Amino acid sequence: MLSLAGGKRDNDLILPINSSLSVTLHQDQLKTTTTAAASQDFTEDRLWLNGEEADVGHPRLQACLREVRRLARKRRGSSTEDTAALSLSYKVHIATENNFPTAAGLASSAAGYACLVSTLARLYGVEGELSEVARRGSGSACRSMLGGFVQWQRGERPDGRDSIAQQVAPETHWPELRVLVLVVSGEKKQVGSTAGMQTSVDTSPLLKHRAEVVVPERLALMVRHIHERDFEGFGQLTMQDSNQFHATCLDTFPPIFYLNDISRQIIALAHRFNAHHGCTKVAYTFDAGPNAVIFMLADTVAEFMEVVRRSFPPTTNGDQFVRGLPVSSASLPEELIAAVVAEPVPGAVQYILHTKVWGWVEHGAGEPICLSSGLCMGPHPHPHPWGCA
Amino acid sequence: MLSLAGGKRDNDLILPINSSLSVTLHQDQLKTTTTAAASQDFTEDRLWLNGEEADVGHPRLQACLREVRRLARKRRGSSTEDTAALSLSYKVHIATENNFPTAAGLASSAAGYACLVSTLARLYGVEGELSEVARRGSGSACRSMLGGFVQWQRGERPDGRDSIAQQVAPETHWPELRVLVLVVSGEKKQVGSTAGMQTSVDTSPLLKHRAEVVVPERLALMVRHIHERDFEGFGQLTMQDSNQFHATCLDTFPPIFYLNDISRQIIALAHRFNAHHGCTKVAYTFDAGPNAVIFMLADTVAEFMEVVRRSFPPTTNGDQFVRGLPVSSASLPEELIAAVVAEPVPGAVQYILHTKVWGWVEHGAGEPICLSSGLCMGPHPHPHPWGCA
Repeated sequence: MLSLAGGKRDNDLILPINSSLSVTLHQDQLKTTTTAAASQDFTEDRLWLNGEEADVGHPRLQACLREVRRLARKRRGSSTEDTAALSLSYKVHIATENNFPTAAGLASSAAGYACLVSTLARLYGVEGELSEVARRGSGSACRSMLGGFVQWQRGERPDGRDSIAQQVAPETHWPELRVLVLVVSGEKKQVGSTAGMQTSVDTSPLLKHRAEVVVPERLALMVRHIHERDFEGFGQLTMQDSNQFHATCLDTFPPIFYLNDISRQIIALAHRFNAHHGCTKVAYTFDAGPNAVIFMLADTVAEFMEVVRRSFPPTTNGDQFVRGLPVSSASLPEELIAAVVAEPVPGAVQYILHTKVWGWVEHGAGEPICLSSGLCMGPHPHPHPWGCA
Repeated sequence: MLSLAGGKRDNDLILPINSSLSVTLHQDQLKTTTTAAASQDFTEDRLWLNGEEADVGHPRLQACLREVRRLARKRRGSSTEDTAALSLSYKVHIATENNFPTAAGLASSAAGYACLVSTLARLYGVEGELSEVARRGSGSACRSMLGGFVQWQRGERPDGRDSIAQQVAPETHWPELRVLVLVVSGEKKQVGSTAGMQTSVDTSPLLKHRAEVVVPERLALMVRHIHERDFEGFGQLTMQDSNQFHATCLDTFPPIFYLNDISRQIIALAHRFNAHHGCTKVAYTFDAGPNAVIFMLADTVAEFMEVVRRSFPPTTNGDQFVRGLPVSSASLPEELIAAVVAEPVPGAVQYILHTKVWGWVEHGAGEPICLSSGLCMGPHPHPHPWGCA
């Protein structure tokens, strides 16, 4: 949350215009797995994304590789051990796979870069603060280096050394928290996130106000809600900040629309659901696209899932409509149906992923979901289906 | 324009939180006609809207009636003539008709209240500053009391005496200016404007910033663009301010959406059209609903109309698709079609109204169209299909 409203202070170093906060999602559902090897037999650095070879020369990928090697060199310089360590001159082969559909490859994925940096660090025997390195690949990747609730400190230094991720709370702090990702059908995104973000910074008077005035206040408040496990406060702020992020997209010129009519219907559904219960039971957030990420506590999942199923019934893939963690069935009271479920729109939601907050990120890296702004507006590309890449 | 971002300082007096600006549209296309009579034979005040009797007791209608009678009394008090004048104790019968479809009646129409006040003033022989009286009926009605380009001064006084309309320029100042209203099909508005506006004022941090900082600057700039007949500047600012108004709606909690996917497609079409021409040829603005109001100069109408017709072809009512002022036919260059016209969406636009800026408002009153914000956010209801009522 409040991951938003970024835009760049510095494009090469990927420094955001404000701090941000996200949760890292469980890896069973949204995981990137990366394998790296170095050998004197390799003649060049090579990269495979989901089985297909890709351009290893991407400047951001090269920046990560360079930074990890620099840290390794530094480490060895101050140590007499590690004589058996891998030569830093060896070329590397990197293979990375996502277990979730992704429109773009590594270059656009927070999880992807976080995982790449973890893997390379392991390969070269580097430890310690690596979020700064991951940030050079994709801004919000710095948050994916940690599990649970993670803040990306904007930092003040021009060299970006203090623009790093810090854990606000581990995932064990709030074990009841659940996430439903509603993947909306159709429509390819029209604006790349990076281009969009820079245009927002250049043209939106409201974004400037948001980054300078609104976000700092909200971040402090959000951290408190998380510490207190206050779902009411957490949920309200998550929704408000998602909406405000999309408001700044609309205030961009030409305007950027990530939400479509289905997104709007999901938003309205969430508000009707909460109104019916008289409190915040579910909280939506939207990244740079129409898919909804909806937070709730575990005891709400079955009921809300049934509400979604009735509102956006599956057309063809009924058996694969719900994925991820199991969901028990619920029967809805008539009053709830009357008050909450609108005219069904079959096929509007492609499928639903049920997941939760993830803790320690090891070899893989979990997708981060911005808690409030709906978009991790770091100055980096992240045109993939959900999460802040 | 900049008519926006209102919200109320005072609900009874209908005082806005910022100044605003609009154009009054030509009455052949969008006209309200009101007739009023007073007689000692009438036993009560009565009102007919489009032929059906309506509640004359509406507080805002009563406020207008009371204010006009007060001014008449004041005038007579300082005069020895007018002995033959109408008794102020006579009851009145009022009949009002719109020549355009309207979802709600007089209570929601700027043109309606402007016309009512003009008519009553004529009946009672009152002259002079009447925009303040019209404002008591419907905030933006004060602007409809004048033709051409009209500013509604926010004013400073708590009693609202300085919250009045002033003409920025007459319609003759820019005779080439044309307006297309694209009436979008379907979907009834979900949020009443008044309720929406008050919620915006209460919950949107961005609206506060907009009203205090952004709008005053933009208003001054817009007046300059109008005086200089600078369509490039006028158009850009009109679009930016419409977008910013809708951004503040999204920043409202719960969020308010007036634009739908068709509105978004129209916006994208306008930007592609301008990009193809390398300058601002058309400028959209949206009120509290999905219908687009598009400004352009007369020499652009034929070409843009053909672009709209190809993008949103009529389904059933081809013969009534274009209404209002005549439009000559145009054949589009292939490059323009390739660059601008997207996949056609038949039936998405119900019909198109071609009109222009109107000058002096006599018995009738023209619809005002907000030049930039897309919505006259005065603290008053205006849920009707277009214009700021």
